[in-house]
Amino acid sequence: MPETSEQDFSQQRFLEINTALQSGMFVYVRKMFQTMPAYDIALLLESSTSKSRNLLWQLVDPDLHGEILEELSEEVRKGILKSMDPEKVAAVAEGMDIDDLAEVLRTLPDAVYQEVLGSMDTQDRARVEQALSYEEDTAGGIMNTDTITLRPDVTIDVILRYLRLKGELPEATDSFYVVSRNDKFIGSVSLADLVTARPEQTIAEITDYNTVPVHVNSTDTEVATLFERYDWFSAPVLDEEGHLLGRITIDDVIDIIREDAEHSMLSMAGLDDEADTFAPVIKSTRQRSIWLGVNMITALLAVAVSSMFEGILSQMAILAVLNTLVPSMGGVAGGQTLTLVIRGMALGHIGDSNARSIFTKELAIGFLNGLIWAILVAGIVAIWKQDLLLGGIIAFAMLMNLTAAGVAGVTVPLLLKRMKIDPALAGSVILTTVTDVVGIFAFLGTATLLLS
Amino acid sequence: MPETSEQDFSQQRFLEINTALQSGMFVYVRKMFQTMPAYDIALLLESSTSKSRNLLWQLVDPDLHGEILEELSEEVRKGILKSMDPEKVAAVAEGMDIDDLAEVLRTLPDAVYQEVLGSMDTQDRARVEQALSYEEDTAGGIMNTDTITLRPDVTIDVILRYLRLKGELPEATDSFYVVSRNDKFIGSVSLADLVTARPEQTIAEITDYNTVPVHVNSTDTEVATLFERYDWFSAPVLDEEGHLLGRITIDDVIDIIREDAEHSMLSMAGLDDEADTFAPVIKSTRQRSIWLGVNMITALLAVAVSSMFEGILSQMAILAVLNTLVPSMGGVAGGQTLTLVIRGMALGHIGDSNARSIFTKELAIGFLNGLIWAILVAGIVAIWKQDLLLGGIIAFAMLMNLTAAGVAGVTVPLLLKRMKIDPALAGSVILTTVTDVVGIFAFLGTATLLLS
Repeated sequence: MPETSEQDFSQQRFLEINTALQSGMFVYVRKMFQTMPAYDIALLLESSTSKSRNLLWQLVDPDLHGEILEELSEEVRKGILKSMDPEKVAAVAEGMDIDDLAEVLRTLPDAVYQEVLGSMDTQDRARVEQALSYEEDTAGGIMNTDTITLRPDVTIDVILRYLRLKGELPEATDSFYVVSRNDKFIGSVSLADLVTARPEQTIAEITDYNTVPVHVNSTDTEVATLFERYDWFSAPVLDEEGHLLGRITIDDVIDIIREDAEHSMLSMAGLDDEADTFAPVIKSTRQRSIWLGVNMITALLAVAVSSMFEGILSQMAILAVLNTLVPSMGGVAGGQTLTLVIRGMALGHIGDSNARSIFTKELAIGFLNGLIWAILVAGIVAIWKQDLLLGGIIAFAMLMNLTAAGVAGVTVPLLLKRMKIDPALAGSVILTTVTDVVGIFAFLGTATLLLS
Repeated sequence: MPETSEQDFSQQRFLEINTALQSGMFVYVRKMFQTMPAYDIALLLESSTSKSRNLLWQLVDPDLHGEILEELSEEVRKGILKSMDPEKVAAVAEGMDIDDLAEVLRTLPDAVYQEVLGSMDTQDRARVEQALSYEEDTAGGIMNTDTITLRPDVTIDVILRYLRLKGELPEATDSFYVVSRNDKFIGSVSLADLVTARPEQTIAEITDYNTVPVHVNSTDTEVATLFERYDWFSAPVLDEEGHLLGRITIDDVIDIIREDAEHSMLSMAGLDDEADTFAPVIKSTRQRSIWLGVNMITALLAVAVSSMFEGILSQMAILAVLNTLVPSMGGVAGGQTLTLVIRGMALGHIGDSNARSIFTKELAIGFLNGLIWAILVAGIVAIWKQDLLLGGIIAFAMLMNLTAAGVAGVTVPLLLKRMKIDPALAGSVILTTVTDVVGIFAFLGTATLLLS
């Protein structure tokens, strides 16, 4: 894994800085920070305990505060902003991009937020309030408003002279948007087309009229999907009437793509809201105990099912010993199907059009794998305990449970989605309950019928 | 979830196409395909069973074959290429970008691959062979070679005239690279800087000498991390001596970011190699049975531990009933820690510099949550069974196991990484074994000591 070399290097530097911090060598840390790009300092803060984080933050050059805040995850940023004076937050705010600033302001406590807004000049405040009027997880919430617009009837030569006069373009500009007199979006002109066109041509002649705009109320996930599908570098954002409001660039979309991809994995472990690896112990304990509590209820349900069979369990201790085997295998098999279906739904590969095919497929896989492991486990138990009937019972339970796992692995997430419940969050609990209950019932129930 | 509207629309269209396909309305399907962008057709193929896939493929306009192949996942692409004549593959190959073509060629069986290569002209073959000489998962494997290079002493005016003569820039060009007479990389000039500079300035005056290049042998994950950290849109690729070899653009990097983020989730369910949701049943069954086999061994280990306590189990059936509770809670708690640590390692937040802090943190959380659930479960059992001692025993086991889960959740992935084993793949099996064994030992062992 050669990608670790870069990480190892960061890690080593982080170790040095932390050692320096603990020995009170603040001047040294300050100096180290001067050689590090904002992202690396953000990474160090993410990698530090919440205690050292505030200490480190005070050693960062205030000029970098804005840039670093943009890079931090929401949880970590919140913690740092809480520790800052409102005036300092307002000072940082001045240098930030509107979309990033709005994101930062959203995480402030209300009193601080009002104070920061109050200390800004009127024009900035108006722009920020405009940005904040859009929902956080929509195209409006992630767009930038520093767009360069062109009129269709102007010549390239004029535009080039205008750009030279301007001297600098907004960050990450790869194209300009062409709008009508009343600001309605017409199309786009890429920088590449601009430099290859003849000076006497008009903008209208080189405009791409097929540019697909994004609607201001689209969700950020929807926007990310479009960028990923059509390999966009940027996209114009329009309101209901087709007026140009701003643009979204791919660097803002990448974070959404990663977060969406991570979301399923974190949710499946019940970690949905715990983005900060180094959150304080009490906070993490509280967040995780909720999930453990949910699991406790399902585990007690399995216990309740087992307790229905106390009679046969007290007669044959071997049943108690083997009782974990079938639910465990069912949980793993169902977990595989569930993971695949959740990912497939997120990528848009699974939906109503093919729910039946995936159901048939996973049912078949569950049955076949059930058969394989039924025969194997029956063999093991029959040889170990010299008991063919017991082997047969556990084989039957295994086949039942792995088939049920396949069925539940497909139907549970599809049903949850239809009920507008996040399948990644609720799916694994429900699935485990199914495989536990079916597994115990099939094993101990059959044993009661045949052995007692 | 408004993002489903877009997906619903796709799904509805897919349903229509599949119905048409099954009724043999091939002309209708062909017509539908003419209105769909390549990505949407690729999505439909990914969402179809392997049987309909080959049928659908034959109805696609051959001119779109190349573009669609680029968008498909490796598994699905392999299946389609297998069904095509080598000459047809060669025809498709002509229109593709070098980096995408190399990716496609890598998935071909050797005989077909040689035939495709043989049917290309000498120049194309040389370029492809050059691209194939780099490892697939490296910067060399994902770079494009259609880079525009500039000399430092030329004026902007000359460059602009040259570009107008050229008439078109390579796809996704946002900057040019400045090289010396012997092709050594000097720096970059963005399109934005080019259009804002005065015509009489030289390239040297507007060159960004701080452009960070990527080494041709860097892994694709390392490249993706750099793009994500520093918000790059493109990056130059250099060899050992600093010669410019090509460029990587962000659209090629996005797929890597998503795949890397997905990899952990799929691996944790043992689905590492199963990227195709609609792979044939037999293939999927075989792939998943390996993982089930591994789990079977660990489940049998838990059974073996339980069987050491058959004596006490046969005396008290209630122990058999409660025996699943402690391992289940340990498995969930440990899974949370494991997921968090695996994600933290992937993001570069966890490494040697802070292994101790995360260990201390998770140990504390494990202990605290152990305490909470120990008290609760003790209360439930004591009231339900009117047995204070039994409540105490299960409480002790719960505390032990949740603490062990926290410890194992941190140490197992860190150790695996040091041993160069993928923690996402092996971590959850090892962790479950730990929480099963510790849970059963602590519960039944203590019960044996105190109750028999």
